[in-house]
Amino acid sequence: MAEQAERVVPLTDPPAEDEKGPSKSALKKAAKDKEKAEKAAKRQAAEEAQKKEAESSDISKNDYGELPTDGAWPSDFPSKDEVPRVQLPRLEEYLAEIASKAETPGGPHVVFRASVENARSQSAKLAFLVFSRGGASIQAVVAASDELSRQMVKFCSSVPAESYVLVHGLVKEPKEPVKSTTIQMLEVHVKKLFVEGKAEAQLPMQVADAERPIPVEGEEEAVDGRPIVTLSTRLNNRVIDLRAKHNHAIFTIKDGVVALFEEFLRSQGFRGIQTPRLLGAASEGGANVFEVKYFATKAFLAQSPQLYKQMLIAARFEKVFEVGPVFRAENSNTARHLTEFTGLDMEMEFEENYHEVVSLLEELMLFIFNGLKERYKRETDLVRSIYHVEDFKLPSAGSVPRLPFSEGIKMLREAGEELGDFDDLSTPQEKRLGALVLEKYGSDFYVLDEFPLAIRPFYTMPTASTRASYNHDKPNVGYSNSYDFFMRGQEIMSGAQRIHNAAYLEKRMKEHDTPVDPNGEGLRDYVAAFRAGAPKHAGGGIGLERIVMLWLGLPNVRLASLFPRDPGRLAP
Amino acid sequence: MAEQAERVVPLTDPPAEDEKGPSKSALKKAAKDKEKAEKAAKRQAAEEAQKKEAESSDISKNDYGELPTDGAWPSDFPSKDEVPRVQLPRLEEYLAEIASKAETPGGPHVVFRASVENARSQSAKLAFLVFSRGGASIQAVVAASDELSRQMVKFCSSVPAESYVLVHGLVKEPKEPVKSTTIQMLEVHVKKLFVEGKAEAQLPMQVADAERPIPVEGEEEAVDGRPIVTLSTRLNNRVIDLRAKHNHAIFTIKDGVVALFEEFLRSQGFRGIQTPRLLGAASEGGANVFEVKYFATKAFLAQSPQLYKQMLIAARFEKVFEVGPVFRAENSNTARHLTEFTGLDMEMEFEENYHEVVSLLEELMLFIFNGLKERYKRETDLVRSIYHVEDFKLPSAGSVPRLPFSEGIKMLREAGEELGDFDDLSTPQEKRLGALVLEKYGSDFYVLDEFPLAIRPFYTMPTASTRASYNHDKPNVGYSNSYDFFMRGQEIMSGAQRIHNAAYLEKRMKEHDTPVDPNGEGLRDYVAAFRAGAPKHAGGGIGLERIVMLWLGLPNVRLASLFPRDPGRLAP
Repeated sequence: MAEQAERVVPLTDPPAEDEKGPSKSALKKAAKDKEKAEKAAKRQAAEEAQKKEAESSDISKNDYGELPTDGAWPSDFPSKDEVPRVQLPRLEEYLAEIASKAETPGGPHVVFRASVENARSQSAKLAFLVFSRGGASIQAVVAASDELSRQMVKFCSSVPAESYVLVHGLVKEPKEPVKSTTIQMLEVHVKKLFVEGKAEAQLPMQVADAERPIPVEGEEEAVDGRPIVTLSTRLNNRVIDLRAKHNHAIFTIKDGVVALFEEFLRSQGFRGIQTPRLLGAASEGGANVFEVKYFATKAFLAQSPQLYKQMLIAARFEKVFEVGPVFRAENSNTARHLTEFTGLDMEMEFEENYHEVVSLLEELMLFIFNGLKERYKRETDLVRSIYHVEDFKLPSAGSVPRLPFSEGIKMLREAGEELGDFDDLSTPQEKRLGALVLEKYGSDFYVLDEFPLAIRPFYTMPTASTRASYNHDKPNVGYSNSYDFFMRGQEIMSGAQRIHNAAYLEKRMKEHDTPVDPNGEGLRDYVAAFRAGAPKHAGGGIGLERIVMLWLGLPNVRLASLFPRDPGRLAP
Repeated sequence: MAEQAERVVPLTDPPAEDEKGPSKSALKKAAKDKEKAEKAAKRQAAEEAQKKEAESSDISKNDYGELPTDGAWPSDFPSKDEVPRVQLPRLEEYLAEIASKAETPGGPHVVFRASVENARSQSAKLAFLVFSRGGASIQAVVAASDELSRQMVKFCSSVPAESYVLVHGLVKEPKEPVKSTTIQMLEVHVKKLFVEGKAEAQLPMQVADAERPIPVEGEEEAVDGRPIVTLSTRLNNRVIDLRAKHNHAIFTIKDGVVALFEEFLRSQGFRGIQTPRLLGAASEGGANVFEVKYFATKAFLAQSPQLYKQMLIAARFEKVFEVGPVFRAENSNTARHLTEFTGLDMEMEFEENYHEVVSLLEELMLFIFNGLKERYKRETDLVRSIYHVEDFKLPSAGSVPRLPFSEGIKMLREAGEELGDFDDLSTPQEKRLGALVLEKYGSDFYVLDEFPLAIRPFYTMPTASTRASYNHDKPNVGYSNSYDFFMRGQEIMSGAQRIHNAAYLEKRMKEHDTPVDPNGEGLRDYVAAFRAGAPKHAGGGIGLERIVMLWLGLPNVRLASLFPRDPGRLAP
């Protein structure tokens, strides 16, 4: 109110309108403004006096209000020994723990911090709020009594939704189960309430709107009287959007994939590495790479740690993995492309045959899938209750379908697709093949092996028979020791045995369909690594967001990125 | 040799030198070249005939040679069931395991893959090699016999150092302990040897040279007859350099720090996050930020995940951590600065006071230090045997020295330094204070708390007393709820309680010594996050390479980065 009053007070010296001085109408307006301001000042003074009087007679005046700027704990709040601090997700568990102990008069006391889902006044003497934290929510009652003032009831009923509060209350059984909260058989009777972080009354979107699935394109109209909030609006207000319960679940699962990836590889003797994102040259081919101003010269952002993880194999690191951002300057505005995403990369020596690596990668993926099923069932179910999708069908260990590329082509042809032996699969063909594999092998996860040489990068090892039938005029015809992994018919990983012989690598660099210069900047050091004697090796790179998207059946990969980046989005 | 011969054969049609046709001297040279080529061809034919004859009479011809391009396992090599595959680091352990079992005639057979440290011929009938892998090395004997040809001895003695080989041999006791290898009481008698990855005979530097410490500036002369290889040469040939045993140890420790960081924080309920590196605006201040060409517009590389981790706290993530690359476009060419390094970041809500977060961070660091002592003792000792440094003195749990900044100033003044109450410490002053703290508290690890407000970023929460004595004319005088962590007198972490109140944040943004615009691109979304109601929170960011450098006492932070980036280095 004070701010409002200040705004209408006219300037003591009205600004000169022009050289002639203020006009008649201006003078009239100034007089009117003055009158208005005087009225406002009076009103304000009256309100303040009233407020002071109310405060002095407010029996609850030390039990509610806004915390100071640093959120300092109120001095007369119960200590940890007096009242335990139990956050909402642990409340029911805590009450079960103390149930056997002596009963507290009036119900157990608790102190917790939570956000306000909503607050409403029932009457001057009664307010209801819903508190939530970590996916749990509970109803709260603020009732005027000999010990709790109407002023406090009024204050609590007007706390804006999404504010963060500190609460001291008694836990009781509600008269009837509360339907709108996750904790339905308990409610909190508020004794003290302080606002720690006040939300503005008008937020650009509601968390409740973010709790529903993103609309399918063309179906953005309101449903059940609630506005449909588009993906774009949600991403523009991502902090509010992320508060939705299923969004928390998505990012708990995403972190779970990283943790499982690292756990499995560390248990197999892999070492984590950090390779540079800033490169002196666009090593993996000039297209789709972001350019950086680097002091007097320029640098490029890594599209993957490919060359570096191989150089570390040459440096005798044996088995390495890396989790880190990778960048693709691809102007693709689809539901599956991001310009920045998280790569889960690994590379390793092997003993006899690159299929050792394929087997290990299959085990790794099964470890992740089974880990998600066991450790993140609640989160998975929660997300799938929003984005309905079939359960992810897993093969048993040791029976992951592993099809040669040629077999995949055969299956597609039998299903009526027309394509050549060495053609790359289109996205619809990949999905089709995924469906055929699911039908035949009962698995949403499978491996396509021995891809055509021509459609893989220059460092890919050709198969032995391709090398044996080498034809100088058609050096790229044939197959290679390379593989893709698929979930629900979409690629999540690409990998291969790499060439570890420098001379052969240089030959392949020159004769590849898109030749690269072995002496080019950034590649010189790469080739030199193999001149220094390197073991045979293979590996792969997994797109983290893709796994999350396909595990959960999300309709857009952006939903699996906290702050997604695409050609049109760099904020927030 | 074939390649050599090819190179001197003249072209059938000598290239026209100019319009006049070849000159006399050119014709003479061509004739001479032809003669040379004929001689070379004859020589080559003779050599090949000799080689063929030698091969046909070579009893070992299937037991040695170069593996095919893909490194395929030789067909007549013993199977896993016949001869176990035991890599060198596990060899002694394996022999102890089988010691109780029946003895194999001639000694236990083993098959392993390793690199060749060196190979030399003692006579036509005897060669010695040293194999190494994973920090272990062993001497090998290749002796001609009824079953092993002189040709094979010759081949083995000429395998270039650093080549990668596949070996089948018998393990025996040497006549006397081998001094130059880590396995001294055993040697391998080679039965079969194949080169998997051949190194060039002339490498740009030797691993042996990389095994010694980098030279101190101005002391780059040869010692003990061996060349001193500068840091720059080592980094230019980083793949070879990284093969040095202590370099492997450094990066095992570095990965250990990451693993310990994640283990501790996950156990405390933290969730891993991935925030963007590509930003739409240089949010944390325009200086020292790299600019990226982003389609039709431009982007900037993140200097830290600071604003994003706070936004996630506002999104109710409660406790988050991130491990990822961060970028500083600072033109500093010192031993402590990199333009790209790995940030270990965390941020969390707290209950009452930001010191809860400081305590958790102290625990985290002690968990890392103790973890390094327990799990990485061998690696730590190995590196410290190269770079001699005092043992890192740790405080006991709960007794980490935590000094207010003002106390630090007092100690420095008492030691004769001249500086003002609110001056930032220079690097020498920081080191001096580290020494004073070590002397007084016996700890190489300590915390400096309550830094002057003016030298911290705009989002730092002032102390309660600074806020209480707010002076509009001097808004930045006083202290703040912020802290730095130090190892051996050098900063490894910076952190603070952040402002969680949007209005106060906007005020501080404007009145900071280097004001920022709250409505500026990139900051709008940040401020909006707090308008939506945020809890109080604090956190910190640790430089991973700094911890590794200071734990091990390395003289340069570049030694703690696999492929370091500085203003002058973008390769390899």
